[in-house]
Amino acid sequence: MTDLVTFGETMLRLSPPEGVRLETAQRFDVRVGGAESNVAVAAAALGLDAAWLSKLPRSPLGRRVVHELRGYGVDAGIAWDDGEGSRLGTYYLEPGGEPRGTDVVYDRAGAAITTVSFDELPADALEGADYAYTSGITPALSDAAAGAARDLLCEARSTGTTTAFDLNYRSKLWDPREAREGYEALFPHVDVLVAARRDAEAVLGRDGDAAEMARGLAGDHGFETVVVTRGERGALAVHDGEVHERAAYGAETLDPIGTGDAFVGGFLAKRMRGGDVPAALEWGAATAALKRTVAGDLAVVTPEEVERVVSEEDADISR
Amino acid sequence: MTDLVTFGETMLRLSPPEGVRLETAQRFDVRVGGAESNVAVAAAALGLDAAWLSKLPRSPLGRRVVHELRGYGVDAGIAWDDGEGSRLGTYYLEPGGEPRGTDVVYDRAGAAITTVSFDELPADALEGADYAYTSGITPALSDAAAGAARDLLCEARSTGTTTAFDLNYRSKLWDPREAREGYEALFPHVDVLVAARRDAEAVLGRDGDAAEMARGLAGDHGFETVVVTRGERGALAVHDGEVHERAAYGAETLDPIGTGDAFVGGFLAKRMRGGDVPAALEWGAATAALKRTVAGDLAVVTPEEVERVVSEEDADISR
Amino acid sequence: MTDLVTFGETMLRLSPPEGVRLETAQRFDVRVGGAESNVAVAAAALGLDAAWLSKLPRSPLGRRVVHELRGYGVDAGIAWDDGEGSRLGTYYLEPGGEPRGTDVVYDRAGAAITTVSFDELPADALEGADYAYTSGITPALSDAAAGAARDLLCEARSTGTTTAFDLNYRSKLWDPREAREGYEALFPHVDVLVAARRDAEAVLGRDGDAAEMARGLAGDHGFETVVVTRGERGALAVHDGEVHERAAYGAETLDPIGTGDAFVGGFLAKRMRGGDVPAALEWGAATAALKRTVAGDLAVVTPEEVERVVSEEDADISR
Amino acid sequence: MTDLVTFGETMLRLSPPEGVRLETAQRFDVRVGGAESNVAVAAAALGLDAAWLSKLPRSPLGRRVVHELRGYGVDAGIAWDDGEGSRLGTYYLEPGGEPRGTDVVYDRAGAAITTVSFDELPADALEGADYAYTSGITPALSDAAAGAARDLLCEARSTGTTTAFDLNYRSKLWDPREAREGYEALFPHVDVLVAARRDAEAVLGRDGDAAEMARGLAGDHGFETVVVTRGERGALAVHDGEVHERAAYGAETLDPIGTGDAFVGGFLAKRMRGGDVPAALEWGAATAALKRTVAGDLAVVTPEEVERVVSEEDADISR
Amino acid sequence: MTDLVTFGETMLRLSPPEGVRLETAQRFDVRVGGAESNVAVAAAALGLDAAWLSKLPRSPLGRRVVHELRGYGVDAGIAWDDGEGSRLGTYYLEPGGEPRGTDVVYDRAGAAITTVSFDELPADALEGADYAYTSGITPALSDAAAGAARDLLCEARSTGTTTAFDLNYRSKLWDPREAREGYEALFPHVDVLVAARRDAEAVLGRDGDAAEMARGLAGDHGFETVVVTRGERGALAVHDGEVHERAAYGAETLDPIGTGDAFVGGFLAKRMRGGDVPAALEWGAATAALKRTVAGDLAVVTPEEVERVVSEEDADISR
Amino acid sequence: MTDLVTFGETMLRLSPPEGVRLETAQRFDVRVGGAESNVAVAAAALGLDAAWLSKLPRSPLGRRVVHELRGYGVDAGIAWDDGEGSRLGTYYLEPGGEPRGTDVVYDRAGAAITTVSFDELPADALEGADYAYTSGITPALSDAAAGAARDLLCEARSTGTTTAFDLNYRSKLWDPREAREGYEALFPHVDVLVAARRDAEAVLGRDGDAAEMARGLAGDHGFETVVVTRGERGALAVHDGEVHERAAYGAETLDPIGTGDAFVGGFLAKRMRGGDVPAALEWGAATAALKRTVAGDLAVVTPEEVERVVSEEDADISR
Repeated sequence: MTDLVTFGETMLRLSPPEGVRLETAQRFDVRVGGAESNVAVAAAALGLDAAWLSKLPRSPLGRRVVHELRGYGVDAGIAWDDGEGSRLGTYYLEPGGEPRGTDVVYDRAGAAITTVSFDELPADALEGADYAYTSGITPALSDAAAGAARDLLCEARSTGTTTAFDLNYRSKLWDPREAREGYEALFPHVDVLVAARRDAEAVLGRDGDAAEMARGLAGDHGFETVVVTRGERGALAVHDGEVHERAAYGAETLDPIGTGDAFVGGFLAKRMRGGDVPAALEWGAATAALKRTVAGDLAVVTPEEVERVVSEEDADISR
Repeated sequence: MTDLVTFGETMLRLSPPEGVRLETAQRFDVRVGGAESNVAVAAAALGLDAAWLSKLPRSPLGRRVVHELRGYGVDAGIAWDDGEGSRLGTYYLEPGGEPRGTDVVYDRAGAAITTVSFDELPADALEGADYAYTSGITPALSDAAAGAARDLLCEARSTGTTTAFDLNYRSKLWDPREAREGYEALFPHVDVLVAARRDAEAVLGRDGDAAEMARGLAGDHGFETVVVTRGERGALAVHDGEVHERAAYGAETLDPIGTGDAFVGGFLAKRMRGGDVPAALEWGAATAALKRTVAGDLAVVTPEEVERVVSEEDADISR
Repeated sequence: MTDLVTFGETMLRLSPPEGVRLETAQRFDVRVGGAESNVAVAAAALGLDAAWLSKLPRSPLGRRVVHELRGYGVDAGIAWDDGEGSRLGTYYLEPGGEPRGTDVVYDRAGAAITTVSFDELPADALEGADYAYTSGITPALSDAAAGAARDLLCEARSTGTTTAFDLNYRSKLWDPREAREGYEALFPHVDVLVAARRDAEAVLGRDGDAAEMARGLAGDHGFETVVVTRGERGALAVHDGEVHERAAYGAETLDPIGTGDAFVGGFLAKRMRGGDVPAALEWGAATAALKRTVAGDLAVVTPEEVERVVSEEDADISR
Repeated sequence: MTDLVTFGETMLRLSPPEGVRLETAQRFDVRVGGAESNVAVAAAALGLDAAWLSKLPRSPLGRRVVHELRGYGVDAGIAWDDGEGSRLGTYYLEPGGEPRGTDVVYDRAGAAITTVSFDELPADALEGADYAYTSGITPALSDAAAGAARDLLCEARSTGTTTAFDLNYRSKLWDPREAREGYEALFPHVDVLVAARRDAEAVLGRDGDAAEMARGLAGDHGFETVVVTRGERGALAVHDGEVHERAAYGAETLDPIGTGDAFVGGFLAKRMRGGDVPAALEWGAATAALKRTVAGDLAVVTPEEVERVVSEEDADISR
Repeated sequence: MTDLVTFGETMLRLSPPEGVRLETAQRFDVRVGGAESNVAVAAAALGLDAAWLSKLPRSPLGRRVVHELRGYGVDAGIAWDDGEGSRLGTYYLEPGGEPRGTDVVYDRAGAAITTVSFDELPADALEGADYAYTSGITPALSDAAAGAARDLLCEARSTGTTTAFDLNYRSKLWDPREAREGYEALFPHVDVLVAARRDAEAVLGRDGDAAEMARGLAGDHGFETVVVTRGERGALAVHDGEVHERAAYGAETLDPIGTGDAFVGGFLAKRMRGGDVPAALEWGAATAALKRTVAGDLAVVTPEEVERVVSEEDADISR
Repeated sequence: MTDLVTFGETMLRLSPPEGVRLETAQRFDVRVGGAESNVAVAAAALGLDAAWLSKLPRSPLGRRVVHELRGYGVDAGIAWDDGEGSRLGTYYLEPGGEPRGTDVVYDRAGAAITTVSFDELPADALEGADYAYTSGITPALSDAAAGAARDLLCEARSTGTTTAFDLNYRSKLWDPREAREGYEALFPHVDVLVAARRDAEAVLGRDGDAAEMARGLAGDHGFETVVVTRGERGALAVHDGEVHERAAYGAETLDPIGTGDAFVGGFLAKRMRGGDVPAALEWGAATAALKRTVAGDLAVVTPEEVERVVSEEDADISR
């Protein structure tokens, strides 16, 4: 039986070698990335049965996505799109240090998932699942994707599955006003909300400190749990009216992309393994810290490593 | 003053390492490819002033295309598209030996060039140019692109520039019936036609031997020159009623992609350098043979190398 | 429900870049290879549900094997070995043209699988499977492995699963006399025998032409089907007393390793899809030919590609 | 019409992978580098028409240099040297962290440029140019190169072009006494002087603070503008008797080589775009900071990026 | 005549690209590593005649080890093992930043060296050597290796060669109690002891500050010299009753592996070149600092570089 | 005691990836190559003690050459040049299939070896050596190098060492008339002459069949042995008045560079191991055939492999 079902877009991720600009690149590293599959990979790495649902073009590129995710132990439930013009969303990631900053060039318009409906997804995995997860990127893709996200959360809840949602605001996809509307259409179906503090401010117009934000959101929308993440300043959760905080673990950052998804994956994994919210915050923070040391979006970690970080043991050369 | 002006789409070309399938690739080599820019590069390599006109998204990827072509000495005249959703056509090239065969996965729908008009192109280079060139791929892209191709050929001719056109039939873009219609709308504005024998058969419904085909096409459409190419069996031209043949030069093929464009580039280069049609066939064949030894779509060659092949000198280790 | 269950050793495969010798290599490509998992990958690629059973050390290297095979859609049923000294078999592949030849350096002694017992394998997949497969490498590894292979074939047969076995003689593991003994201990539990002609000669002492060999083996051991493979000279099967032959399809060989396993995978896949023996020979030969164009041991192919080869269509550049 | 004309040596730059020493390297990254072409590339990246003049051997290596610079949009005006022994200057760059330090091994003696004369340069671009630039490396190469630099600055000035000169002292090419003599022979023809503080001290014997240095140099030699650069401590200019300072922008340094040239390119670009000296210092500092995040000598940046740094906006992941 | 003879195991070192985990790696960098050969390489780099003795399988992999060490100028005295199952020890190095830490997966059980005896080593080099060196890894490998180490130290001493020994405790090979026993069996034959402070504490049960440790060890076992190393806090030696301290030189660490061996190599090299203990500590510290800037286990440095670090000159870009 | 001493220039060899032209290369593979060191490497690989004498700049690049050759077991006897402008000869190898052909761009003028004298070479190895070898490239480098070659051959012979010389005509270094003069100055000191048939024709003006050439050369100059090589048509020797022929062994050629030197290395190795001339021709031909399967100039082979080729055993996959 599947523990966690996620739903969302996963794209081909193309990135030049370190320090090389897209404008002059002669080689791309090929990976796949998507918030929801990233979360599924983290959960699978931590020992859960995780599935990811999506729509992909029936092409070598669509199969490329499935090939990679399956390698990480994620069960891919795909609505294959046979349409001639069907395409895979692609993005070009150009990492850059200060003051340049990392740039992302999206080429995702018209991807297969923009026509997805809940009915065409092979959603058997949903039945009896512990958790279902999607993020705020999905409703930004198209009305159809927004509808499928809503249907999936509804359906999940109707059979006792806990639903989780991360705001994941993307300014290149919609503006704050549209995003707020999109989020609020889903909130009634969400049990666990994860929100980056800057998204809660910029999109939902929340202010005050993180605890006030979390309490406010929980109160206004009836979420069972609200987690507010603040990057290096750690995370905070409100659950059953109680506030729990967890500082971030120190990390030498090799690749920051996917840190937030690793946090969610770690948090949910611990919840599914029966941990309480404080323990889940620890797992989230530890998975996120480990992710920062790994190239690519994905949290290639083990439960043992997460436990070691949580117990704050020294990480010297082990030989 | 520019010798040759070409117009058409150039795409990002992504290809996995030798023997690796798209489905499992972890690295892509990044190049750019397009029939018309390939021809411009070959001509520039052979000492001509060559320009290429197109429409590109104003993005790092658009600049990537210009960066590469300029390196080969081609003057890029670009209508930059500032539209938010503007995108660059992309294709995935997966080379494969027999019986697998090479596969091309296009992701070019909605590329910036599909909205091009002749008026927005910085076409100053056209003025006084010797030759203008486009291929049958351009009208297959969109009605707008077909219109721009027609306007460009018209305009070129009106000021005494010779126009050249290669059928370049692409079955993934249109069917033979559509293609024939598209070609015939341009034929009245074309002086020099280049046609692969298999395209002349499949699309234009020509039969008989190559000489008959060439004569027939010249007669029916009033072309000044018709070149029929037959891959390893060489090429044949009808010009001023005379038939000229040229066998292909033997080549160890490292990468066959772009051979046809190298032929056209070599042929036109020799014509622009004042050679007659038989000499131009030799240059076309020699440039094509050299191209086969070079990785990528582009004919990175020198006039001296072409001359050496034409004079059929031995190519041993030179040290 | 699983269609095919295979059992055997899969090793880490380390190989230097083309033309570089192990003695001086500074980089290895890392892949995994094993006859039985190769067969499972080919079957999965051709649309079957395929599982592979084995024993691996609980270590990053053990997980490396599972990671790769899962990517290809193979369900890995692993007995994880927690023993401190538990190790993964490794081999170094040094491809070399004539007259050097390809060399394989094994470092597989004492691998986890040498202590495997059938009982510790998570063999649920076996229940109701169409086919079970192992090869003559397995009994060469250790007495324990030989016993597990025998138990697995027995168990499979007892519940109506057809069993298949490929001799796969490896002279670096045992001598012909030992091998013959090892094979003959398994033959009573085998329905479908695949034998390279050279192995049938050298190990089983068979002579005569391939048809005689196949008939003789079928007669002596009561196999339902015997397939004799002869490399580029094609394959031949005796089934229900009838002889079927199939020439090899021509192929440009980029990497010959794994061709035999691709043949078996294609053959069994077609049988499982309901094809008769002649059709299965076609699929075997076509899968093998396609494999030759792909780097690595694995047949990364699609059913459509196999069908296209079988129908002997031209494989030109498709664009 | 060209905005900026530069003149100087550009060499092949060969460097081993990160952390690998020349003594054991098995691979070199191939780039080209030269102070004056670096400045031209930065200016071209920032939207100016930039040309670079030099002398190169007529060989694949000479063409290699032109190929790369043209890619960046620089117009290369080359005196091609057909002499049999003509060679391209080469340098080996071995980056090393503290306490090892970066090492440069020059192999530039007898390069084609050492025989250059102003008359053989295709210097049409000079006519009507806004700025002409060379650096103190050029006169260090040979008497001929020193003469050509002087002639070029003279000629430029005589037609109203502003001349700029960066000391760029190289201790492996000459000693301070020789350098001072070489510089002072050019000073009468220079309008804008750029001097690293350490060069002004070590070679020109200037002391005091940077403002005193700049005023002193301006006073003694009649420069219109003097810019003194102090690495991470920022830059200072004296222009029309006024002192302007600009702190360096913070940067995560991936590759420091070429930072100084990026500064000059940014400074001159802003001047040519009509900016005043304080604004030009901002552009210089911002271009230099961006350069530090890019691999190689060249400032692959855009005017928009420079503006963003100048406006001190945050550079987070943009997605 | 050889200056330094070392004896110990050298393994194949396989490591994935930066940031990639063993579990997903597709490429390994291939190097060789072993404490004793690392020391020999450092000494050879610093101008000494250094030899390394060991036992290796007669295979391409055994030759791979010799190939690399010879390149660094080390004379390899090998007992070649012709046994069929003879294997080379291998280890997988997975570097990871905090909080993950670097992991080492050993696959060294049953390596050829575990059956070594002193008599089979081609130990001519020992005669007349200045120093002989082995480390605490050797006796951990097997009883045979421990015996060979003891015999070698005995033999060396009997002919006036000074013997040196570094504890090099490896928790994956034995526990502290076993290690202490193993060390103490060798101590009577050791003149110079090098001990990481943490090993002296954990294995030998020493406490107090480093000077007390060193004095205690010297007193208890009669060592001529005891060096206690404390990583970034520097090293301390007791020699002839006097204490000498040396802070570590600052270094940007690209690869920390092998730093300790570089220290020993530098220390012994200076001693062999006639330096006193304080000077040797300087050389040890400088060699270690330089090593940190170089990829791989080995100290690819020159005596001139070490001298420059010792004299604390600035290491800027040298050009 | 050294078996073989060779003397000559070894250069840095820089080559682009397959199919990439120097004009556009972004990466070079770094190797070293030189006829005489190639011969020494082949001999060392075949079990002989081989030394190579030369003059190199005291620089990381000079050390790079020694590092590589030592790795192959060659003892490098170097006159280190401390001169400031001292440089290492370099060549750029651009392999190309037909009709392009492989191109070599030399950048070797003024290399350290051009000032070599026999006296400064550490030629102790010569004493008691079996064979001394140099090639016709050495006298082409400079008068000094020609003199050193002559002195070395003289000195060798005076102490009973057999001298061998390969014409190795290089048209980029001198013309046939100069070469003939250079060769003939050395012939009186040569015992064994190796001559490519085309060099014997073009430079020495010999005609007739290979046997006539060999007899003529032996007769005219008193050589003990003359070997005439004819590429794929095999080799022929005249020794003691008898003619011996040996066909080439078939080979799949991955890299032809260095085949001739491998032949010489194999031939001399067998002679030094006591083989007669026919056996030496076999070893030469087998070493050459094996070399063709290995990337780079060097014959990385074993005596066992050579024996296997000579015995014409099959080279299939060995596993």
